[in-house]
Amino acid sequence: MDKATEEMLVTYHELNGGIDVLHECPSPLEFMRYVAKNRPFMVRAGCSAWPAIRSWNVPHLRTNLRDTPIKVAITPYGNADSVVRSASDGVNYFVKPFEKNEPFSVFLSHLLGQNPDQADSFVRYSQTQNDNLRSEYVSLYEDVEPDIRFASIALQREPDAINLWMGNNQSTTALHRDNYENIYCQILGSKEFVLLPPVETACVNEQFLPGATYNACMEIIPDDPSLKIPSAVWDPDRPKESPTRFSHLSRPMRVTLHSGDMLYLPACWYHKVSQKDSEEGICCSVNYWYDMDFDGTFHATNAFVRNMAWTVLEEHKSH
Amino acid sequence: MDKATEEMLVTYHELNGGIDVLHECPSPLEFMRYVAKNRPFMVRAGCSAWPAIRSWNVPHLRTNLRDTPIKVAITPYGNADSVVRSASDGVNYFVKPFEKNEPFSVFLSHLLGQNPDQADSFVRYSQTQNDNLRSEYVSLYEDVEPDIRFASIALQREPDAINLWMGNNQSTTALHRDNYENIYCQILGSKEFVLLPPVETACVNEQFLPGATYNACMEIIPDDPSLKIPSAVWDPDRPKESPTRFSHLSRPMRVTLHSGDMLYLPACWYHKVSQKDSEEGICCSVNYWYDMDFDGTFHATNAFVRNMAWTVLEEHKSH
Ligand SMILES: O=C(O)CCC(=O)C(=O)O
Ligand SMILES: O=C(O)CCC(=O)C(=O)O
Repeated sequence: MDKATEEMLVTYHELNGGIDVLHECPSPLEFMRYVAKNRPFMVRAGCSAWPAIRSWNVPHLRTNLRDTPIKVAITPYGNADSVVRSASDGVNYFVKPFEKNEPFSVFLSHLLGQNPDQADSFVRYSQTQNDNLRSEYVSLYEDVEPDIRFASIALQREPDAINLWMGNNQSTTALHRDNYENIYCQILGSKEFVLLPPVETACVNEQFLPGATYNACMEIIPDDPSLKIPSAVWDPDRPKESPTRFSHLSRPMRVTLHSGDMLYLPACWYHKVSQKDSEEGICCSVNYWYDMDFDGTFHATNAFVRNMAWTVLEEHKSH
Repeated sequence: MDKATEEMLVTYHELNGGIDVLHECPSPLEFMRYVAKNRPFMVRAGCSAWPAIRSWNVPHLRTNLRDTPIKVAITPYGNADSVVRSASDGVNYFVKPFEKNEPFSVFLSHLLGQNPDQADSFVRYSQTQNDNLRSEYVSLYEDVEPDIRFASIALQREPDAINLWMGNNQSTTALHRDNYENIYCQILGSKEFVLLPPVETACVNEQFLPGATYNACMEIIPDDPSLKIPSAVWDPDRPKESPTRFSHLSRPMRVTLHSGDMLYLPACWYHKVSQKDSEEGICCSVNYWYDMDFDGTFHATNAFVRNMAWTVLEEHKSH
């Protein structure tokens, strides 16, 4: 069984190279070819003509949003949704951030280090992933496209969510996967993605960890009732720590998006995301989540590959 | 591991229904959506406007092809490329037909039962699958399309092979899979396909059988050197015989193509094909094989699923 897993990883990488870099948005048919292969691409300057690229900056955002209440994710180290060992009980948890409503002006001051409350130096990230661009940030919505035309036409649906991400270089999103076709557009600052294809599920060391949430004092509070969440424990940036016996076969793909760049991140790809601030000191992105198709061969076989990875790694442990 | 396989089969069938029946050819984008899902469709009357549909019949074929030499597959029971237990050594072989060059006129007389040689009542099928429409049968080529436009545009390639299949209701093609995107067009008579998705690999009981070939006397001659060929031993039309412990989870899909109908048979789908004669007593089809894409997630995960099926079934046996 190890042999079959190794063969899959080696075969995959023999047949697949790096990421395609396009210089204009694909047609719906061209896009569909990438969806069919479940392969990412980047469009250099793909959203560079959007009003947001010209007009968004700190003064504009401050004037536009003023004291609009924003749900902010707060963590001690910029580690939203990540695996943390609790100091109090020594257990590894999958920890969600503390969530707090703040006036946008206060949130922005925190991001810029113009912290009004010297006692609160925790890291803030606006990243609710609940279609927040069409709710909290609706006044900014007109500065971006209401959908990604080539994707809506190809997939025959509108985006399920349009998310605005606003933070700074202190925040990193840990390695995880989503059941979405994702079009990610960089507006201010830049983001580095580390991308792993779904076949690498046996490399990322997913463990079923109990969920927990930070409280306002950044203590880890186990969720009640307790739910176990499959959490990637291996970090492609620290490959020697917590590997599985397959991790060395991973070939992480690194992509940096600068202001105006667009990324197609296919369904179920693992991604870790870190950020670099704009000159003004913030980083801002907008992404479009399209529901993936669960019919066809892709979902059923991928779920099988992931199940088998869990089984194979679990069995070894119990020997 | 059995559980993961069962779950894959059940999930797949919960999320996928029967075959889509279209009433006109899809656009390249519409086609690509099916390729992405690896799902078949049928186009009722999809090739009904082709000259072949109007003009091909026994007198026309006889006049057109006369004594052109044709490579004919000859088998005792119409069982080209099938699993047969050899009477002489009791071993199961994957047996290929005896191949013989015959003038088309002789081949056609055999098909029609106007057998010039009473001693030779073996079953004939012209099915070389080597682009024979553009070689042996080139004089018929102008009566069909040189490619399937929507497929060539979507897949960005020309067909690798265009095959003509000519036989009668005595021949059946046993369950197997091919690494091709297949557009199958029915010209004369009708064909019944039994279709199984690639996730059902653990249902079809593939065994690694030694290859063999019929000789002119319809004796089974083991190939030398001997090569083991993965051969589906389970027949969805006789589900009680030679099943695996997963066969009951198979949901065979049945599709009948009549003259003028077109089928998209996606890469790696298992298919068994039987035929009904036209009123004149023959059955004739033309299909277009497009190379499948080996990059992307599909091929690597499918090969893994198949490998695992072999491993899981093998392990059980050795217990
Ligand atoms: O931008 C980030 O920090 C994470 C993005 C992400 O996880 C996503 O778009 O699914
Ligand atoms: O028509 C037949 O007998 C078999 C067709 C087939 O196997 C194919 O098109 O790949």
